Amino acid sequence: MKDVAIVGIGKTRFGAFADRDLRSLAAESVENALSDAGIGPDAVEAFYLGNFAGPSFTGQSHLAPYVSAAAGIVGVPATRYEAACASSGAAFHAAWQAVRHGIYETVAVCGVEKMTCQATPRVAEILAMAGDVAADGTFPEIFAAIARRHMELYGTTREQMAAVAVKNHANGATNPYAHLRKVITLEQALAGKVIAEPLTLFDCSLVSDGAAAVILSSRQGRVRVLGCAQTSDHVGLREKAEITHLPSIESAAKKAFAMARLTPADVDFAEVHDCFTIAEILAVEELGFCKKGDGGPWSVAQPIPINRSGGLKSKGHPVGATGVAQIADVGLQLRGEATGWQVAKADIGLAQNLGGSGATSVVTLLSR
Amino acid sequence: MKDVAIVGIGKTRFGAFADRDLRSLAAESVENALSDAGIGPDAVEAFYLGNFAGPSFTGQSHLAPYVSAAAGIVGVPATRYEAACASSGAAFHAAWQAVRHGIYETVAVCGVEKMTCQATPRVAEILAMAGDVAADGTFPEIFAAIARRHMELYGTTREQMAAVAVKNHANGATNPYAHLRKVITLEQALAGKVIAEPLTLFDCSLVSDGAAAVILSSRQGRVRVLGCAQTSDHVGLREKAEITHLPSIESAAKKAFAMARLTPADVDFAEVHDCFTIAEILAVEELGFCKKGDGGPWSVAQPIPINRSGGLKSKGHPVGATGVAQIADVGLQLRGEATGWQVAKADIGLAQNLGGSGATSVVTLLSR
Repeated sequence: MKDVAIVGIGKTRFGAFADRDLRSLAAESVENALSDAGIGPDAVEAFYLGNFAGPSFTGQSHLAPYVSAAAGIVGVPATRYEAACASSGAAFHAAWQAVRHGIYETVAVCGVEKMTCQATPRVAEILAMAGDVAADGTFPEIFAAIARRHMELYGTTREQMAAVAVKNHANGATNPYAHLRKVITLEQALAGKVIAEPLTLFDCSLVSDGAAAVILSSRQGRVRVLGCAQTSDHVGLREKAEITHLPSIESAAKKAFAMARLTPADVDFAEVHDCFTIAEILAVEELGFCKKGDGGPWSVAQPIPINRSGGLKSKGHPVGATGVAQIADVGLQLRGEATGWQVAKADIGLAQNLGGSGATSVVTLLSR
Repeated sequence: MKDVAIVGIGKTRFGAFADRDLRSLAAESVENALSDAGIGPDAVEAFYLGNFAGPSFTGQSHLAPYVSAAAGIVGVPATRYEAACASSGAAFHAAWQAVRHGIYETVAVCGVEKMTCQATPRVAEILAMAGDVAADGTFPEIFAAIARRHMELYGTTREQMAAVAVKNHANGATNPYAHLRKVITLEQALAGKVIAEPLTLFDCSLVSDGAAAVILSSRQGRVRVLGCAQTSDHVGLREKAEITHLPSIESAAKKAFAMARLTPADVDFAEVHDCFTIAEILAVEELGFCKKGDGGPWSVAQPIPINRSGGLKSKGHPVGATGVAQIADVGLQLRGEATGWQVAKADIGLAQNLGGSGATSVVTLLSR
């Protein structure tokens, strides 16, 4: 097996861009990544696109060749990967496997979502398709149920969840690529409009447009992929033994750590999937940063930087872009290029991407 | 690199099934394939789902774990692959690469589409998303333009296209898993309702429900995968130099033949992507069975059996299922199990799956 490096990183800003379509965002990120890698589109042997709901939001399907051709990549395998909110995590995982096992030397992975569009009024309905439509409700309702149960079992408080929002907003305010660069206070977060009890508007991530891309290579590079694991679980909430435990995250983390020969104590910082504040609290538990139930107080104490980019909460959550964007942001930190939002110690970083309420998980470990 | 075998084949009937949902069709095909392979779901190390428009047709996304869990496959990577009408061809290609390069020993690939549903009145609009929505029309319009140009350049006739329909209907009438088991005459085909001049209803494939699955393994099996290649091209018709030439098919075929160390003359029979009769005529040219422009007369002469299953025209075209269904049907022929529709000589078979108007192509060569 070969060592895999990220040799190019490209991003667009995240935001609500009335004048941008999905293809131009995705192509911009790929062109930036190619330019960062110092290679042309002809060097790309396969194109992996992560996208959740492009057809529903934009009315266009067959998006992988639609995007790759716009970036000058024509002829090679070009496929769209869909695994709900972990779509580009899944695309990255497949691409990483392919380079690691010598199928290709150089590939491009792009994640994209264009959510502000004519279909935006149906956004809750479109996002709900990532869960069991016949059995579960909207995602705020699903994560509200998880939050209530976590509060009941472990004494997690609304203040702890609000603290996650305050932290991520403060972080995102320093990231020039973040969607909502706005500092908020704990009082504001607690006084937010209730979306689904106990979650307020400030517990929920954003509806964003954006794209991110990376170039993977078996050549040497400044960012190394030490391990990457993808796992799955039932889609429906009622099929989980305990809704505050998402075993797909735990098992993906264990596999990724085993590949990298590392433990959670070795990680300097992480980008985790805070689609809701409670999801960040769950994630740090399942990843092994603290023990089960301690995610609330651990998040307040913040022993290592979590979501220094601003996370899905402030950086934004263009669903299909998120997995690759997390990895791109970890890569920028490892290169020391997170200007204005650089973490102090950046030798080993982790990215965790969640699909739906845990039916897909992807965990990736990266180092300088 | 390892030899890859198809060790299990599972299919559902194709048809319009008011009482069946996407999940039950897909799970049935996977369970049949596992049973045929003589293994349980625990033996599956990764699950590859090909599906074009499940979210648009059924309102459910995140379909890979949604389906795999129903078939008892939980925990492993489960991802949906989308490449328009070549979605399950792309899923198969990725799965084959993974087994060939030693990433996994045993994987399941499933293709599924549920097209008869509440969204069926919008079927032309949903299918059109496989092309360039902003620039091109519906698929009958796209292939009608290709047909007119092929008639103009090469003298291809309406009778030759109708003959493809007559042949595929006669073939499908003998396949118990086919959707429309109805023999038609040349006169009927020529007198069909015009959908887009010169294509009549009988030149168009069906709107179907159905699923197909195969188990791939690096262990020995009765069906060997000799080569498989996926290629891409521009999505929009106007970006093609000549609309009667689909270079993605030609290059995928050349790559697959090179891997298999075979030539078109070695192929005993093929399942090709006859979404329209003209598409079958184009396919036999691009695959190298005859020279460019001779697809019409070659199809009438039929030197080797093409679409002995009935093809998309009579067997049916549940879009996301088609790529794996073609491979499954070639596999059944190679095993001598196409009872009632067995071809006489079945040592080497080819499957060709097309996405949209050629932005994705997958060509697979199989042998006993």
